[in-house]
Amino acid sequence: MLYKRNPQLNRHGELIHLLSIEGLPRAVIHQILDTAETFLSVNDREVKKVPLLRGKSVFNLFFENSTRTRTTFEIAAKRLSADVLNLDIAKSSASKGESLLDTIANLSAMHADMFVVRHSESGAPYLIAQHCAPHVHVVNAGDGRHAHPTQGLLDMYTIRHYKRDFTNLTVAVVGDIVHSRVARSDIHALTTLGVPEIRAVGPKTLVPGDLREMGVRVCHDMAEGIRDADVIIMLRLQNERMNGAMLPSAGEFFKSFGLTEQKLALAKPDAIVMHPGPINRGVEIDSSVADGRQSVILPQVTFGIAVRMAVMSILAGNEA
Amino acid sequence: MLYKRNPQLNRHGELIHLLSIEGLPRAVIHQILDTAETFLSVNDREVKKVPLLRGKSVFNLFFENSTRTRTTFEIAAKRLSADVLNLDIAKSSASKGESLLDTIANLSAMHADMFVVRHSESGAPYLIAQHCAPHVHVVNAGDGRHAHPTQGLLDMYTIRHYKRDFTNLTVAVVGDIVHSRVARSDIHALTTLGVPEIRAVGPKTLVPGDLREMGVRVCHDMAEGIRDADVIIMLRLQNERMNGAMLPSAGEFFKSFGLTEQKLALAKPDAIVMHPGPINRGVEIDSSVADGRQSVILPQVTFGIAVRMAVMSILAGNEA
Amino acid sequence: MLYKRNPQLNRHGELIHLLSIEGLPRAVIHQILDTAETFLSVNDREVKKVPLLRGKSVFNLFFENSTRTRTTFEIAAKRLSADVLNLDIAKSSASKGESLLDTIANLSAMHADMFVVRHSESGAPYLIAQHCAPHVHVVNAGDGRHAHPTQGLLDMYTIRHYKRDFTNLTVAVVGDIVHSRVARSDIHALTTLGVPEIRAVGPKTLVPGDLREMGVRVCHDMAEGIRDADVIIMLRLQNERMNGAMLPSAGEFFKSFGLTEQKLALAKPDAIVMHPGPINRGVEIDSSVADGRQSVILPQVTFGIAVRMAVMSILAGNEA
Repeated sequence: MLYKRNPQLNRHGELIHLLSIEGLPRAVIHQILDTAETFLSVNDREVKKVPLLRGKSVFNLFFENSTRTRTTFEIAAKRLSADVLNLDIAKSSASKGESLLDTIANLSAMHADMFVVRHSESGAPYLIAQHCAPHVHVVNAGDGRHAHPTQGLLDMYTIRHYKRDFTNLTVAVVGDIVHSRVARSDIHALTTLGVPEIRAVGPKTLVPGDLREMGVRVCHDMAEGIRDADVIIMLRLQNERMNGAMLPSAGEFFKSFGLTEQKLALAKPDAIVMHPGPINRGVEIDSSVADGRQSVILPQVTFGIAVRMAVMSILAGNEA
Repeated sequence: MLYKRNPQLNRHGELIHLLSIEGLPRAVIHQILDTAETFLSVNDREVKKVPLLRGKSVFNLFFENSTRTRTTFEIAAKRLSADVLNLDIAKSSASKGESLLDTIANLSAMHADMFVVRHSESGAPYLIAQHCAPHVHVVNAGDGRHAHPTQGLLDMYTIRHYKRDFTNLTVAVVGDIVHSRVARSDIHALTTLGVPEIRAVGPKTLVPGDLREMGVRVCHDMAEGIRDADVIIMLRLQNERMNGAMLPSAGEFFKSFGLTEQKLALAKPDAIVMHPGPINRGVEIDSSVADGRQSVILPQVTFGIAVRMAVMSILAGNEA
Repeated sequence: MLYKRNPQLNRHGELIHLLSIEGLPRAVIHQILDTAETFLSVNDREVKKVPLLRGKSVFNLFFENSTRTRTTFEIAAKRLSADVLNLDIAKSSASKGESLLDTIANLSAMHADMFVVRHSESGAPYLIAQHCAPHVHVVNAGDGRHAHPTQGLLDMYTIRHYKRDFTNLTVAVVGDIVHSRVARSDIHALTTLGVPEIRAVGPKTLVPGDLREMGVRVCHDMAEGIRDADVIIMLRLQNERMNGAMLPSAGEFFKSFGLTEQKLALAKPDAIVMHPGPINRGVEIDSSVADGRQSVILPQVTFGIAVRMAVMSILAGNEA
C-alpha cells in the first residue's frame, strides 16, 4: 500500500485517477464495466467515434516501450475524439537530465488533460498523480511489477461477459506470477468482486507463498491448479527474465505448466481460457488451445478497447 | 502468382484489398484513376478534408521503415478524416517473438478497418489479407521485390493526365528493373491498360530477359530504349544493392543509362520524365532533366496523395 | 543578417514565415502577442479546439531531435484543428541521400501548408523558406545557434503579462549566451520592443564582448548583472557543451552565476525569474528559486502554447 488515503478517488468517492485495482471499490469496478458495455457497440458502428473527449489532450507517457499497449490507449482516446500525443520519453528531456516531476509539471502547464503512464518502476504513476496539476487525470498503463489495472479490468469484463456472476467461480491464474503485474491486478479485482476460489498456479520459484495471506490458494501442481476451474488465465512467460536461475528451460516449463488440450480437459467443460498477450505458442500455451473453442484471447483485446474508453471517459467527467 | 482466386476482389468483382496490380481488371484501375481525379480538387481546397473515412481506424504497419511512403498514406487517410495509427512494428511485439499472424489477429480485434502494409518479404500483404478479419481491408505499400501497387497506379494517373490515351504510347522503364517492385507494378498496369510498346531498359545484370514473355521489349542499349518514347520512367538506383558484383560503379551506370538532356533528345519532343523518388541526382538522372520542363516528378507526388485517397475510399465502401 | 530583403514578410508587410525575431517589426510582434492572448482562454476551455486550421497539414520536420519542442507545436496545431504529421527526418530519405531541398519539394507537392523546422545548422529554415512552394509557411523551431523565435516570443509574452510596459525595464539574460539561440532571439525582441537596459551576464568565455555593439550591457559579475533587474532570464547550461575548455565545472559555474535566493535578493523585489527549460537544478538555478514565488517558468510553458497557436494562425491567414 503506497498511500494512506486512496489517491484514486475524490472526496465523493469518484474515480479521478486509475492507478491500481487495489483499493478500488466494487461499485467503481462495476461502473467501469457497465460503461465499457455501452462502448462495445460504438466500436461496432460504421462511425466509431463519440465526442466525449473532444478537445481534450491525452498524453501517452511511455517511459518503457510497449507499442501494443500504447496502441490500445491511442485507439480508445481517438474513438473518444481526444487529441493524442505520443511522447517517446526515453529519447526526450529525461535524457537531458530533467527529473520526472519537472517533465510532468511542464506537460501539465501545456494544459494536458490525461497522462497514460507506463513505467518500469513500481509506483511511478502514483508519484505523478500526487504531483500533477489538479485538472490532470493519470492512468497507470503498467508500472514495474506492481499493477496493470486496465488489463485487470478488461479481464474482469471478459469473465463477466462469459460467466455473468463472479460469486460462484473458480479462477486459476497460471504461470510466472511473481513477475506479473497482470496477475497482481487480476487477483485484487477477483477478490473485490467476490470470487470464492482464486488459485495461483506455477512452480515454487514463480509463485510466492505469501499469496495465501490474500486468500489465494497456491498450487505448485498444474492438475490440482486447473481442476474444475471456470476460468484459466495464462500469463506470458517473460523469456527475457528466464535466466537459468529460476527455471531450467522453456521446454520444461511447458511440460509442467503449459496449457495443452489434455490439461484443459481437467477444467470445467465450459471453462474459458484467457491470456493478456502476446502469447508464446508452445511455451505457456499450446496453439490448439490458443486457437481453440474455449479461447477468449481475441475477445479480450476487443473488450480492452471498450474498457479503456470507459476508464478515460469516467475520469474526464470527474473533478479532483 | 500467389493465389488461384484473385484475393483482391469480392464475388461482385469489387476491390476489397489492393495487393498487386497483377490481376486487377482494367475497369477497376480506371475506377481508381477516376476517383483520384475527384480528390485532386480536394487537395487544392482551403479545407482539405472529406468525411468519407470518419471514425475508421487505419493502421500503418511498416515492417520495413519508409518515412516517405508512410507519410503519403498518413496524409491521404487524414484528409479522408480517418484516425491513423502508426505502428513501428520493428520495435514492437514482433521483437517479443509474436508471429505476424498473431499481431494481425490482435489488431483486427481492436476493430481496425484498414492495414497499410510495407514488408521486406514478397507476399506478406497477401498472407495478411488471407488471415485478417473480413471487415479489414489491406493495402500493399510495397512488399519485397514483388509489388508497389499504389506507386504503379499513381504512375498510371500521371501518364493518363499528360497523355490521355494509353493505346498509342511507347513507354520506357529504365534502370534497375530486376530489384524494382515499382517496375513490376508499372509493367503490369501498362499491359492491362493496353500500352502497345513497353520497353525495359538497362544493363543485362539489371534487366531480366524473361520480361520478353510478358510482351516487354528488352533493351540493353539506352539510345534504342528511349528513342521516340512518349514516357520515360526512371527507376531509383538502389546504391545499397550495388556491391560491385552487378555493376562497376554509379559513375559508369550514369554514363550508360543516366538520363541526360542529350539522351532525352532521342525521345519524342513532348515525352514526359517520371521517377518514383527519392532521386539520385547524377546517378540515374541529371539535375537539368529532373528539374527540366519535361519532368513530371513533383506532379507524381501530388497525384500520389489523390490516388491513395481513392484506393482507401473505394476499399472502405466495399464488403468482403 | 542572412538576407537583404526580409523573407518573413510579404509585400504588404504581413508575416508569411517566422524565421527569426531579427528584422520583425514591433507591430508584428505585438500582433502575435495580442493574438496569443485570445488563445490563452481557448486552452482553459472545456473543449480546447478552434477550427482555424481545419484541413491544413502541418509537418513537423525535426532534423534535430527535440520531443519537448515538437510536442508544443503538435499541441498548438491540434488545438487549431490542423492535421499534424511528425517526420523523423533523421531516419528518413535524408539517410537515402536525398537533399534537403528535394525533401522539401516533395513534401510541398503533397500540399503541405506549414513546415515547423528544427535543424542543427543555422539558416536551414531560411533555405527552406526560400525554396518551398509559395503556399507553404515555415516556422523556425530552432536552428543551430542562430534563432529560436517562438521561444523569444513566448518570453516577450511572459514579460508583457507580468510587467505590462517594456520601455522602463531592466532585463538580465544570464548564462551561456554564446551558444544560446534563445538569448539571441530574446535580445533582438527586447531591443525591438524598446527595453532600455538589456544585460548579458556570464563568464567571459560564454558572453561575447561584441554584444555591446547591439546596445547590450555585458556583465561578467553576477551581482552587477542582476542588481535592480525587473526580469531575469536564466539560460540552460548545455552540459554536453561544457568540456573543460570553457568552464572549470558545473559546481563552479553555480557558485558564480547560479541563481540562488541570496543573489535574487539583489534584483527588484518584484523581479520575475524565467527559464526556457528544461532546467538543471543546482547548476544554473537553485531549486528554491525555480519553485519560488518569483518564478514564472511554468506560466512560460502555458503561454508558449498560445504563442505558437498565434503564430500558426497568423501565418495561415496570410499569402505570399
